[in-house]
Amino acid sequence: DDSITREGRAIPEGRQSQIAFHVRLTHNIVNLGIHQSIEFDKVLLNDGNGYSIYSGHFVAPVSGLYVFAWTISSGDHHCIVYDVVKNNEILVYFISDANDHRDWAVSSGTAVTRMNAGDRVWIRVSNIEIYCSHYVFGTGLGTSSFAGYLIN
Amino acid sequence: DDSITREGRAIPEGRQSQIAFHVRLTHNIVNLGIHQSIEFDKVLLNDGNGYSIYSGHFVAPVSGLYVFAWTISSGDHHCIVYDVVKNNEILVYFISDANDHRDWAVSSGTAVTRMNAGDRVWIRVSNIEIYCSHYVFGTGLGTSSFAGYLIN
Amino acid sequence: DDSITREGRAIPEGRQSQIAFHVRLTHNIVNLGIHQSIEFDKVLLNDGNGYSIYSGHFVAPVSGLYVFAWTISSGDHHCIVYDVVKNNEILVYFISDANDHRDWAVSSGTAVTRMNAGDRVWIRVSNIEIYCSHYVFGTGLGTSSFAGYLIN
Repeated sequence: DDSITREGRAIPEGRQSQIAFHVRLTHNIVNLGIHQSIEFDKVLLNDGNGYSIYSGHFVAPVSGLYVFAWTISSGDHHCIVYDVVKNNEILVYFISDANDHRDWAVSSGTAVTRMNAGDRVWIRVSNIEIYCSHYVFGTGLGTSSFAGYLIN
Repeated sequence: DDSITREGRAIPEGRQSQIAFHVRLTHNIVNLGIHQSIEFDKVLLNDGNGYSIYSGHFVAPVSGLYVFAWTISSGDHHCIVYDVVKNNEILVYFISDANDHRDWAVSSGTAVTRMNAGDRVWIRVSNIEIYCSHYVFGTGLGTSSFAGYLIN
Repeated sequence: DDSITREGRAIPEGRQSQIAFHVRLTHNIVNLGIHQSIEFDKVLLNDGNGYSIYSGHFVAPVSGLYVFAWTISSGDHHCIVYDVVKNNEILVYFISDANDHRDWAVSSGTAVTRMNAGDRVWIRVSNIEIYCSHYVFGTGLGTSSFAGYLIN
């Protein structure tokens, strides 16, 4: 009744998809530096314990195909450019850009990627040269969040 | 060949993931009140009949791990702050904020959560104190949508 | 140990979910015409070879329930209205609207849909009458991306 991953670890049947996390911010993070990780502090779900509030990283407990999705909020006249990183690779990067207008700007995305056990994914400030305050908003008129799960 | 949920109901093998819905708006909803549900009226998919157009709520037909994703559009000079709610808990809240500029503002997000059969998830107007028209746009330059599915 | 799709094709057990793609843009696409497809050129993942960089279309290799998610970025003073299309049906349409202000605008969404083998999903410029430059940004302060996977 057990299946074997390509790495040879046995996983109880029916539990292969039971790695999932969903976290969000409960406060604003100000003046993040280049390549600094966004550490979502409020854990809503962390089945499999892949996500760490201390690093903001998700480390794959088992190999497989994972989905990640996030929303990053910037308040009035702020902006942040961020990378979604797997190990040493930038999967995608986006901006939440309210720099020049007085409204919130919210951007989101989804990544699907194949991971080996131990691979990690996180969201960090990009090193792109632009005037951005690099604030991430987690309270006020909205939060920021990060979620992921194993699908196979 | 059947598996048993934690509540003891039998589900035919291979059908555990066949609960999924995708709905959108076909009109603009104006002047929503605090905590009023966004009732997406156009059903694109509703396998398992978890979503109701009459309440805007998704009620889990079986226990398991569910993913929800949504996009909420605001037109020029409008804004809406909304909660994504599971039973009595606000999972996340975001703003689609075009209040102070003449463009549309679109925000999106994804939540992953473990539900018992009968638990419900919906999107409603937040009770945050801010001047917002609380319009949701479903036609014109874009729609608003809500989707979800069982992954395990 | 094999399962049979409703179309009668046999799929090795444990591989039903191993269709997934994730692509993004590495350049800006300018002056797209009505109904022109957004052709994401950088392939991060294409298990099952459903996505084609030549058409921008994803063609379902097998029948089942699929999830699609995308992010479309517009630069300062640009906008694009786009449809997410399955065969002849517009599932949803959204705008990334920075037309009237000097910031980037980013919109995202998720669709869940049941597909037969051979059905196709892509993202194209909408035919809605509005002044929009119909640029899609893939470099600079952010990229645009498209992902999808079979869940069942």
